[in-house]
Amino acid sequence: MALRFKPVDTAFYTLLTTSATHLVDGAALLAEMLGDGNDRQGIAARMRDAEHHADETTHEIIRRVNSTFVTPFDREDIYSLASGLDDVMDFMEEAVDLTLLYEVESLPAELAEQVEVLQRCAELTAESLPRLQAMKDLEEYWIEINRLENAGDKSYRRILAKLFSGSYEALEVLKLKDIVDSLEHAIDAFERVANIIEQIHVKES
Amino acid sequence: MALRFKPVDTAFYTLLTTSATHLVDGAALLAEMLGDGNDRQGIAARMRDAEHHADETTHEIIRRVNSTFVTPFDREDIYSLASGLDDVMDFMEEAVDLTLLYEVESLPAELAEQVEVLQRCAELTAESLPRLQAMKDLEEYWIEINRLENAGDKSYRRILAKLFSGSYEALEVLKLKDIVDSLEHAIDAFERVANIIEQIHVKES
Amino acid sequence: MALRFKPVDTAFYTLLTTSATHLVDGAALLAEMLGDGNDRQGIAARMRDAEHHADETTHEIIRRVNSTFVTPFDREDIYSLASGLDDVMDFMEEAVDLTLLYEVESLPAELAEQVEVLQRCAELTAESLPRLQAMKDLEEYWIEINRLENAGDKSYRRILAKLFSGSYEALEVLKLKDIVDSLEHAIDAFERVANIIEQIHVKES
Repeated sequence: MALRFKPVDTAFYTLLTTSATHLVDGAALLAEMLGDGNDRQGIAARMRDAEHHADETTHEIIRRVNSTFVTPFDREDIYSLASGLDDVMDFMEEAVDLTLLYEVESLPAELAEQVEVLQRCAELTAESLPRLQAMKDLEEYWIEINRLENAGDKSYRRILAKLFSGSYEALEVLKLKDIVDSLEHAIDAFERVANIIEQIHVKES
Repeated sequence: MALRFKPVDTAFYTLLTTSATHLVDGAALLAEMLGDGNDRQGIAARMRDAEHHADETTHEIIRRVNSTFVTPFDREDIYSLASGLDDVMDFMEEAVDLTLLYEVESLPAELAEQVEVLQRCAELTAESLPRLQAMKDLEEYWIEINRLENAGDKSYRRILAKLFSGSYEALEVLKLKDIVDSLEHAIDAFERVANIIEQIHVKES
Repeated sequence: MALRFKPVDTAFYTLLTTSATHLVDGAALLAEMLGDGNDRQGIAARMRDAEHHADETTHEIIRRVNSTFVTPFDREDIYSLASGLDDVMDFMEEAVDLTLLYEVESLPAELAEQVEVLQRCAELTAESLPRLQAMKDLEEYWIEINRLENAGDKSYRRILAKLFSGSYEALEVLKLKDIVDSLEHAIDAFERVANIIEQIHVKES
């Protein structure tokens, strides 16, 4: 039986890893956007493409979850993983999108800290998802993601304190807070993905 | 057996359809509220009634889900459908409520686009839910809801750009953004309902 | 069998009750923070400790849910209860945290109404969770929580109306709304916990 269902299993792991690699691309685009000189319209267009590819991968996973009789682990967990990864991309795209929509000239330097956390989370997740099949060497992944989320949270709070320090006009605070919140939500979504993987690991082992 | 449980099944479809018809009423009240001259206190009162009726229908569905041994499809899915429909109403009522609470004199004309999307979504959902029993002719429903959600999203972004263009004071932006967000959340909630129905369809067919 | 699994069962009820008692501590710290003279840095530190203890209890519950073969009721429900209680603490800690982060000098008196609701909800929940084992005398608990949530909602709306009345500067409104929203979210999280308990009760009885 194991052999018989192997192809199905592998497909899920491959698709989830593909989903994570879209996030590596997305985080790289966020880093590009922080450069004041860069062509934001072009970056936003590429982000929309990345988000579109991520959507297709998510739908492909959900189609398989719904149509496959035997899944490598609980279909609810596969579904949560897929939508968790999809959430990350949506929040990253939202950050780029709002920057253009609000015509924000320059972003506070502190945003670079959040984006570095996102890049590191994306790489870690893309590296670790293939290890889900063997169900081992995942511990350091979710521990590191939690550490990164804490670091991201500290940056987020430093940025909020700066935004509300009085050196920004209320309307500018409103704009920047929406963008900073999108980045924070993307980091939180990475942590949710890590928590789901930790839970799958506990259940399966 | 099939025959024996038929009454139960039908009850669920009828209640879910009733729930959707409350949303048609709610969306109509939103449209009324956009007229500057209208009696907003009266509209808000009728909206509270509509929201109250919707709550009762939701509780009736959940009571049945919990007390019925055989349900027409996964009880989790019925539960998600019922609370998804309930979410739409809560967001629509919130929009009306905040308009009065914040004493907003006149709403940007663009809100009419969001409300039209909500009215169309409500009608489509109320028309389509009865077809859930036969599990057919539902495809065009969720495709159209997704199309409407995209249209709503474009309106939402146009409104945000206008709010942050500098022609509104920060406090006014804060007020209007809360109202516009409620309408956007109501549209997103309609899309979640459509996604649940698509998933039920895939699982059952 | 019943006897054999009794220890496990009791552990879950004890841990959920411990989780609720952390919320009683948290709500008391919120009440302290409202006093203008009080040492907010010290209160925030104690709140972080309370939040940390609550996290440990939540993780302990989730570990048990994942590693226990027979649970007293659906593991999904235990999981929802544990994370629901954890959400309350996160929102209460957020309110204290933002007050310091935003350097808010004095909080509107109306916040005391929200905090009283939170204290009452926390006490009620801590008193009622032990009765989950016998599955009785819980009705008045969730009815009272729903009544308190409605009262909290009225206070919340009065505060919003005051914040947007024009007597506060936009930046101050932004700061205070974040804090008031955290308190409102904490109250809503208590209601979600009560709804979960009501559903468990319906399913089990």
